[in-house]
Amino acid sequence: MNSPEIQQMIQLLSRLPGLGPRSGRRVALHLLKKREALLKPLIEALQTADQTITTCQQCFNLDTSNPCHLCQDTKRDDHSLCIVADVADLWAIERSQIFKGRYHVLGGLLSALDNIGPQQLTIQPLLKRLENGQIQEIILALNSTVDGQTTVHYLANHLQSYAVKLSSLAQGVPMGGELDYLDDGTLSAAFSERKRLYA
Amino acid sequence: MNSPEIQQMIQLLSRLPGLGPRSGRRVALHLLKKREALLKPLIEALQTADQTITTCQQCFNLDTSNPCHLCQDTKRDDHSLCIVADVADLWAIERSQIFKGRYHVLGGLLSALDNIGPQQLTIQPLLKRLENGQIQEIILALNSTVDGQTTVHYLANHLQSYAVKLSSLAQGVPMGGELDYLDDGTLSAAFSERKRLYA
Ligand SMILES: [Zn+2]
Ligand SMILES: [Zn+2]
Repeated sequence: MNSPEIQQMIQLLSRLPGLGPRSGRRVALHLLKKREALLKPLIEALQTADQTITTCQQCFNLDTSNPCHLCQDTKRDDHSLCIVADVADLWAIERSQIFKGRYHVLGGLLSALDNIGPQQLTIQPLLKRLENGQIQEIILALNSTVDGQTTVHYLANHLQSYAVKLSSLAQGVPMGGELDYLDDGTLSAAFSERKRLYA
Repeated sequence: MNSPEIQQMIQLLSRLPGLGPRSGRRVALHLLKKREALLKPLIEALQTADQTITTCQQCFNLDTSNPCHLCQDTKRDDHSLCIVADVADLWAIERSQIFKGRYHVLGGLLSALDNIGPQQLTIQPLLKRLENGQIQEIILALNSTVDGQTTVHYLANHLQSYAVKLSSLAQGVPMGGELDYLDDGTLSAAFSERKRLYA
């Protein structure tokens, strides 16, 4: 019905995460109405990103430089390594400003269901990074899901032989979380890892 | 924190309708991971759309040709005109295949709140289209909102002097609609426009 040019635009926009045919059409129309303010700048930004963004071959972050700015930053702690599944998780931790060491992006989680084994993740490069003995502490910042916990156990096993302090994120009630809205797993974890308030 | 190139991409994606900072980041990462399958084709589709899509100066549809393919289609009925607020509404009616006449896209609705008057809409070109007397029937397919109904009344007044049959879409219970989920306005409209089932 529409011209093939509009159809193609809608079809690709509909494939973006969180969008579907309906929102794809809405975004396409919006872009066509805001040529100068949005469509042209977006085209340019996507082109620039495509041409300049690369994967850091040390930590597997995405950045314009390789090694990335986090790997190059001399003010960060070389002894502490935070392992995340995805670049999105690295970004989230950076936003929280809670961690000042180095990162390692696994590129996913082990998953029997999705047929993702250790070879699909950046586990070999991770073990290679540990060889020089500089890293003394590793924090596993992985999702609190079945796949996340499978990966925690797998890594815990394979990192045992290195002289590193290994920890994973605490589980419990999220900030602002209301108990009667939490799932049973979260509630059990919060109970079993309860913290003593005075001695 | 991120490179300015990634920030700029996220910032523009976040401004798309229905997206925000969080989904903007998600879409950006997805695009950077699917360079060949999604990012490059999307850049090309957006460029093509930007370069080829134009506004039809007759009906104000968006298309690669001006007049658009709907205005040019000789199989469509020249005597019947459907007035819509937005190209999205035209697309929706085309998908339903219920209408085989011509269209006129107003480019919005009259709105006191948003300060949109008749001059901001394509009402002058509409009146000009009616001058040759070819159009015999006009269907106002406008939203069933305050602005939509304001526009219906305004157009009804201004189209009175032309010898056209004027109608607007029926109001009532939407297909599959459950009565106890409908707002009062819809329910009242459905009652007052109830249809007799036998004589
Ligand atoms: Zn890096
Ligand atoms: Zn047209």
